[in-house]
Amino acid sequence: MTEFEWPVRVYYEDTDSAGVVYHAQYLNFMERARTEWLRSLGFEQDVLIEQHQCIFAVHSMQIQFKRPARFNDALLIRNKLVSAVRASLVFEQKVYCDDELLCQAEVRVACLNANQFRPMPIPSFMLTELRGEC
Amino acid sequence: MTEFEWPVRVYYEDTDSAGVVYHAQYLNFMERARTEWLRSLGFEQDVLIEQHQCIFAVHSMQIQFKRPARFNDALLIRNKLVSAVRASLVFEQKVYCDDELLCQAEVRVACLNANQFRPMPIPSFMLTELRGEC
Amino acid sequence: MTEFEWPVRVYYEDTDSAGVVYHAQYLNFMERARTEWLRSLGFEQDVLIEQHQCIFAVHSMQIQFKRPARFNDALLIRNKLVSAVRASLVFEQKVYCDDELLCQAEVRVACLNANQFRPMPIPSFMLTELRGEC
Amino acid sequence: MTEFEWPVRVYYEDTDSAGVVYHAQYLNFMERARTEWLRSLGFEQDVLIEQHQCIFAVHSMQIQFKRPARFNDALLIRNKLVSAVRASLVFEQKVYCDDELLCQAEVRVACLNANQFRPMPIPSFMLTELRGEC
Repeated sequence: MTEFEWPVRVYYEDTDSAGVVYHAQYLNFMERARTEWLRSLGFEQDVLIEQHQCIFAVHSMQIQFKRPARFNDALLIRNKLVSAVRASLVFEQKVYCDDELLCQAEVRVACLNANQFRPMPIPSFMLTELRGEC
Repeated sequence: MTEFEWPVRVYYEDTDSAGVVYHAQYLNFMERARTEWLRSLGFEQDVLIEQHQCIFAVHSMQIQFKRPARFNDALLIRNKLVSAVRASLVFEQKVYCDDELLCQAEVRVACLNANQFRPMPIPSFMLTELRGEC
Repeated sequence: MTEFEWPVRVYYEDTDSAGVVYHAQYLNFMERARTEWLRSLGFEQDVLIEQHQCIFAVHSMQIQFKRPARFNDALLIRNKLVSAVRASLVFEQKVYCDDELLCQAEVRVACLNANQFRPMPIPSFMLTELRGEC
Repeated sequence: MTEFEWPVRVYYEDTDSAGVVYHAQYLNFMERARTEWLRSLGFEQDVLIEQHQCIFAVHSMQIQFKRPARFNDALLIRNKLVSAVRASLVFEQKVYCDDELLCQAEVRVACLNANQFRPMPIPSFMLTELRGEC
């Protein structure tokens, strides 16, 4: 089980008037990290759409917000792929600032046909490789 | 148990290049509905911060994305307050388009001191009224 | 020259840690108002895409940020269509809070083919009606 | 006159259902690049707020959207500081994808007191250094 890390800097756009990162913004950070993890394995999502008509969409998630991140913080997003089955992936994702855990989530991502938005199997060459990661 | 409804129109800003509402955006929609529900009960959050130094922040949530919303859709967000205890509220929130359920979440909101971001009790005059809603 | 008004409430999602509405967010508010103005004239943009393959995209804008809006403010966006020519529209848009002007912009919107993103003429039935508005 | 470059990757969150980067999002990209340029000169904005009570806020801008960026594009934001006077800075900023100019803007940024949001002089140690950059 390899772990992937992706750095995210907090800009004004990510914060709200309570002085902290707006809660929904962590979902963006987590998606950036999943995207970069796929890229690190050689999978570009625009190519997957074009060549395999498949997109990955969040199906469900459980998320806990533990400590607030603030403007200018340098965050680290950690991804672990927990399971890879026929048409979905489950990730455990954590957001850190200086070794302090700020936020964690379990995210289920479904493979969908890009046109109809119906579940489709993850292309087999991809599933094989993803399974090696969990 | 009364239910509250808040209409939300989908604009370009809410969508992504997969042609649907970006998943994190539903969290914004749900927060708008919680804000308007509080307002409908007479609670303005800027006043709560100023007079009681309390803010409400999402502590955790479970969310399921069932069907995609699209550009120009007229959505309806439904809020139910499930529980109101000393320092936190639990909501059940659902997003509909034309009676079709698109997304649902259980959202735990904590009452925090606006300066230190530490849990504080919900002001008692407010808790009394909120309890009457669940 | 008729003027159109659209109310916008400021939520946490719109603000930043400086305690005010994040500057780019005014562009979203202005687009909501243009969308609702088109709708008020009977033009639904999803229908325009489907039936006429045309979309409206911002070509350029000049924008001045004069006073900050804050969390919970009830804003009013005012639209005036200044010109409507073959393939573009020019709007003057202003954002008010309680009669105070917060932000104003001149926005040029181009009519583009939805697939190739190349300029195309505004459908003539539409241009005729829009011209009557400026 | 030195030029600064900052890379930005386009994620789903940045795009809209027209299949391109949502226009307001370029303002975010440009602010990230200004923030990173300040950082590259040794100026951290959270420290400036804390120690000098000064924040930088966009006062006005002129922006032209020339070509659309798309999901997964690797963009480059280029900053040039055009002028630095007592209480404001003017930037010329350009967004490129593979040497193609997508978007350009002239951005005037004002130095404001972080509490009252009134113009204040740029701290002199900072102004001296910034002037050397234009």
